[in-house]
Amino acid sequence: MTDDEYEAELARLQVALVDAQIWAQAEGKKICIVFEGRDSAGKDGAIKRITEHLSVRQTRIIALPKPSDREKSQWWFQRYAEHLPAAGEWVIFNRSWYNRAGVEKVMGFSTPQEQEIFLRDVTPFETMLDDAGIILIKLWLDISKKEQKARLDDRRADPLKRLKVSPLDAVAQEKWDAYSAARDEMLRRSHHAGGPWTCVKTDKKKDARLNTIRHILHILGCPAYSLDVPAPDADIVFGYDKVIAGERELFK
Amino acid sequence: MTDDEYEAELARLQVALVDAQIWAQAEGKKICIVFEGRDSAGKDGAIKRITEHLSVRQTRIIALPKPSDREKSQWWFQRYAEHLPAAGEWVIFNRSWYNRAGVEKVMGFSTPQEQEIFLRDVTPFETMLDDAGIILIKLWLDISKKEQKARLDDRRADPLKRLKVSPLDAVAQEKWDAYSAARDEMLRRSHHAGGPWTCVKTDKKKDARLNTIRHILHILGCPAYSLDVPAPDADIVFGYDKVIAGERELFK
Amino acid sequence: MTDDEYEAELARLQVALVDAQIWAQAEGKKICIVFEGRDSAGKDGAIKRITEHLSVRQTRIIALPKPSDREKSQWWFQRYAEHLPAAGEWVIFNRSWYNRAGVEKVMGFSTPQEQEIFLRDVTPFETMLDDAGIILIKLWLDISKKEQKARLDDRRADPLKRLKVSPLDAVAQEKWDAYSAARDEMLRRSHHAGGPWTCVKTDKKKDARLNTIRHILHILGCPAYSLDVPAPDADIVFGYDKVIAGERELFK
Amino acid sequence: MTDDEYEAELARLQVALVDAQIWAQAEGKKICIVFEGRDSAGKDGAIKRITEHLSVRQTRIIALPKPSDREKSQWWFQRYAEHLPAAGEWVIFNRSWYNRAGVEKVMGFSTPQEQEIFLRDVTPFETMLDDAGIILIKLWLDISKKEQKARLDDRRADPLKRLKVSPLDAVAQEKWDAYSAARDEMLRRSHHAGGPWTCVKTDKKKDARLNTIRHILHILGCPAYSLDVPAPDADIVFGYDKVIAGERELFK
Ligand SMILES: Nc1ncnc2c1ncn2[C@@H]1O[C@H](COP(=O)(O)OP(=O)(O)O)[C@@H](O)[C@H]1O
Ligand SMILES: Nc1ncnc2c1ncn2[C@@H]1O[C@H](COP(=O)(O)OP(=O)(O)O)[C@@H](O)[C@H]1O
Ligand SMILES: Nc1ncnc2c1ncn2[C@@H]1O[C@H](COP(=O)(O)OP(=O)(O)O)[C@@H](O)[C@H]1O
Ligand SMILES: Nc1ncnc2c1ncn2[C@@H]1O[C@H](COP(=O)(O)O)[C@@H](O)[C@H]1O
Repeated sequence: MTDDEYEAELARLQVALVDAQIWAQAEGKKICIVFEGRDSAGKDGAIKRITEHLSVRQTRIIALPKPSDREKSQWWFQRYAEHLPAAGEWVIFNRSWYNRAGVEKVMGFSTPQEQEIFLRDVTPFETMLDDAGIILIKLWLDISKKEQKARLDDRRADPLKRLKVSPLDAVAQEKWDAYSAARDEMLRRSHHAGGPWTCVKTDKKKDARLNTIRHILHILGCPAYSLDVPAPDADIVFGYDKVIAGERELFK
Repeated sequence: MTDDEYEAELARLQVALVDAQIWAQAEGKKICIVFEGRDSAGKDGAIKRITEHLSVRQTRIIALPKPSDREKSQWWFQRYAEHLPAAGEWVIFNRSWYNRAGVEKVMGFSTPQEQEIFLRDVTPFETMLDDAGIILIKLWLDISKKEQKARLDDRRADPLKRLKVSPLDAVAQEKWDAYSAARDEMLRRSHHAGGPWTCVKTDKKKDARLNTIRHILHILGCPAYSLDVPAPDADIVFGYDKVIAGERELFK
Repeated sequence: MTDDEYEAELARLQVALVDAQIWAQAEGKKICIVFEGRDSAGKDGAIKRITEHLSVRQTRIIALPKPSDREKSQWWFQRYAEHLPAAGEWVIFNRSWYNRAGVEKVMGFSTPQEQEIFLRDVTPFETMLDDAGIILIKLWLDISKKEQKARLDDRRADPLKRLKVSPLDAVAQEKWDAYSAARDEMLRRSHHAGGPWTCVKTDKKKDARLNTIRHILHILGCPAYSLDVPAPDADIVFGYDKVIAGERELFK
Repeated sequence: MTDDEYEAELARLQVALVDAQIWAQAEGKKICIVFEGRDSAGKDGAIKRITEHLSVRQTRIIALPKPSDREKSQWWFQRYAEHLPAAGEWVIFNRSWYNRAGVEKVMGFSTPQEQEIFLRDVTPFETMLDDAGIILIKLWLDISKKEQKARLDDRRADPLKRLKVSPLDAVAQEKWDAYSAARDEMLRRSHHAGGPWTCVKTDKKKDARLNTIRHILHILGCPAYSLDVPAPDADIVFGYDKVIAGERELFK
């Protein structure tokens, strides 16, 4: 795919996202998209393309900093719940409540018991959101160890990306296996009817972005797309059930 | 019980509540007490006695007005969740998320489907609070039809109580049976290990208040009560399981 | 005044408060009452009597705990501003933004520069609230050194009042003069047309409470009081301008 | 300026923005940037370039929808105040409290009295933010009538920009003069030492963006810019005092 082809296709898909938001506003739909994935898996970039032409007043990107002490003592989902969408709103979480099963587990930022409780509670939590009519789209952006290394190295060299370099990056490669194990347990235990996980291979950024948007558009199923929305490439975007069935693999 | 005896016993129990809050602060306990019951069942009065000597900065009474349109479109529990207690805090709900199964059902303020979803979701919701270490005490204040009539009549005659008279009072007696049916389904479906219902007979206000406090103190189980806390009177305060077992009855 | 006379007069005045709230709801008035005063000056007790028969859903008592580190770095008025009343609401601050000029100054909880900025900014801040149609009633509860000592001693002896005993009480007497100086500067610099200070002598609790309510009722000037509201006793309740004019004195 | 030159210079300036945010975090600076200007003046586009490489967790873009009825009854600044920055945070307002003096005045969304109050209160409000150490950067993006027409026409034709088309656009040209008059009064009355207005000519988008960033960088005055930051072009970016002095003109 050339750059021009990518840009053209991206613009086509963004037109459909605009269709979808106009429709969602009219219908009072509530959209909640959760982006998860290792450091440098491409969360920020994907979110940028999705929101590029959406309404600034109806779309919120939520990227919470680490919890304060008071927040730590509260119900874990509390500080996320206050940002959930009302009618017509789109809320995109750049990392989310799943921190507890990912970075917090690997880095020891919470207790094993808290992490276990999270994994037990997340399915009922999301089932309630589903019951409330919130369209919940959960995306796991999956990057290979090699590509992550390349991106993290690149970040460190790029003066524009210094704010992306976090102390946690330093151990991302080192703790690769721990993150893989955390991811596997997390996906396995939180994949459910009201909040299924979709995996996206992100080693090729452009393919990942285009297919992520295609997937979102398919899930939203807006009846009024002014253009054909091709199905996502099944090798790039696939439900976690395909992984369970052994038909697809996540990076190890 | 004379007035003096009542005041003396109330003061004794309030001393134990003070013990309990000092302990809860030190231990970082999170206390959440939910008061439910028909109009005039005695929620405001009980809450007043409980909070009388508690810390104004660590205790919050939450009495939400009816939801705005935007709130109506959100996840039902969202506007309640933001008030849940952090470490050391006591939060008392004067009416709560249970509105959906009570007044909203009887008055048609939400759809039957929304009410059904609530009854399905409230147990997992509260189970999560329990998992988070929140001590959840749910109280159903049970008043008889006759006593309610007397109190509502009294309110209408008392210039001090005009702000308690709500348009909904007018139909409380008329819709008595609908409220009873709503209550029965609500209690039955939301009585669970992490959030058991306790019923309190409130036709006799003083007995009700003293025994409510005794119950709270027993549940909190603060090891350092400076005074003996008598068990609540089992004819006034009883778990909803007693009703299920046919050993106690709620007013019809 | 006997207890019975006090109770009777309190009830009469509370009836007028109920009148006032009914009127304020109908007219969409926004009421904001600020209670300031030294430890044990009677803030909690006065607030209790005022709110006793008001609507729990339209009246909020705000008693904020000490600011978190994040809050400390924000605009000082920010965490108070979020609680200001909307149409029909009554908000009562039990201590307020004036902490910066009182306890924070005496105890050194903020810098002299922050305290100076506060004293410079508070008048424009309140002028804006006044411009916004918020009825702002600022009360300085004035207690004598001797009476404070008696009350603090009493607190320490009373198991019911243990939650009122704060580490700051211990130095209240010792730092009496520093508190007096802080008070004098605060009142002098923040007494202005849109937010005048009213002083209340509180050594006699009952007189203080009755006269505080009378003052509030006079300020609100609800046209529909169902009972005559006597003017407050000019020796107990007086504008700070009387102090400026040398006609009244605050305790030294 | 070719596209490549623009991109190269943009990247250079963004590197300096990254420097500035790293410094602001370390120093606990609080940054608040207000973007104002007519429809299509280029607010969204400029904000996008500024935030492109900033930390998603320390930077918030606030683009509030129209106020609810409850919000309308509150102190006007209240719903904005809650988003003000704490230490280390950058908050960018895409339209702001100035709505009251612009769109609300021209469209009659509030009363003349409310608008007058706003113009009287905004200077003391912002002076307080300045006193609180918030670095407040207020930008008026100034577009010509002709260029606005072209952009609005373009929007209507571009399926990607449909969410930018608002009912208010329809009258933007028609009410051009009313908007000019509102702007002139607004700038004149709210230009003050603690919150000076800077005007940016935005008919040439690229020049506008680069110079806007240069201006921000100069104001921030981070000592550690790793690159030279050229001064903004004085014909594109200029203080409102230049307009007052008759040295520069805004579009009529
Ligand atoms: N000490 C901590 N406790 C809990 N969570 C933390 C802690 N430090 C960082 N986090 C969380 O870990 C996640 C990843 O951090 P980081 O890699 O720095 O952010 P980003 O995803 O923006 O690159 C973020 O959601 C952050 O809030
Ligand atoms: N239209 C409505 N929609 C939803 N809830 C409502 C509506 N009207 C009243 N309520 C709720 O019904 C409950 C009972 O109302 P009311 O009897 O007036 O209050 P109170 O419990 O203070 O006496 C309150 O929680 C109130 O918020
Ligand atoms: N009825 C209204 N009352 C008050 N403000 C409004 C109203 N309608 C729109 N606004 C405000 O006017 C501003 C301009 O609206 P619009 O042109 O639709 O938005 P945008 O700036 O996103 O293009 C926004 O800040 C919006 O919140
Ligand atoms: N360390 C502190 N910093 C700022 N304010 C405080 C601090 N400690 C107590 N306060 C405030 O001082 C006031 C009196 O405290 P207390 O007497 O403990 O209720 C309350 O408003 C407290 O929030």
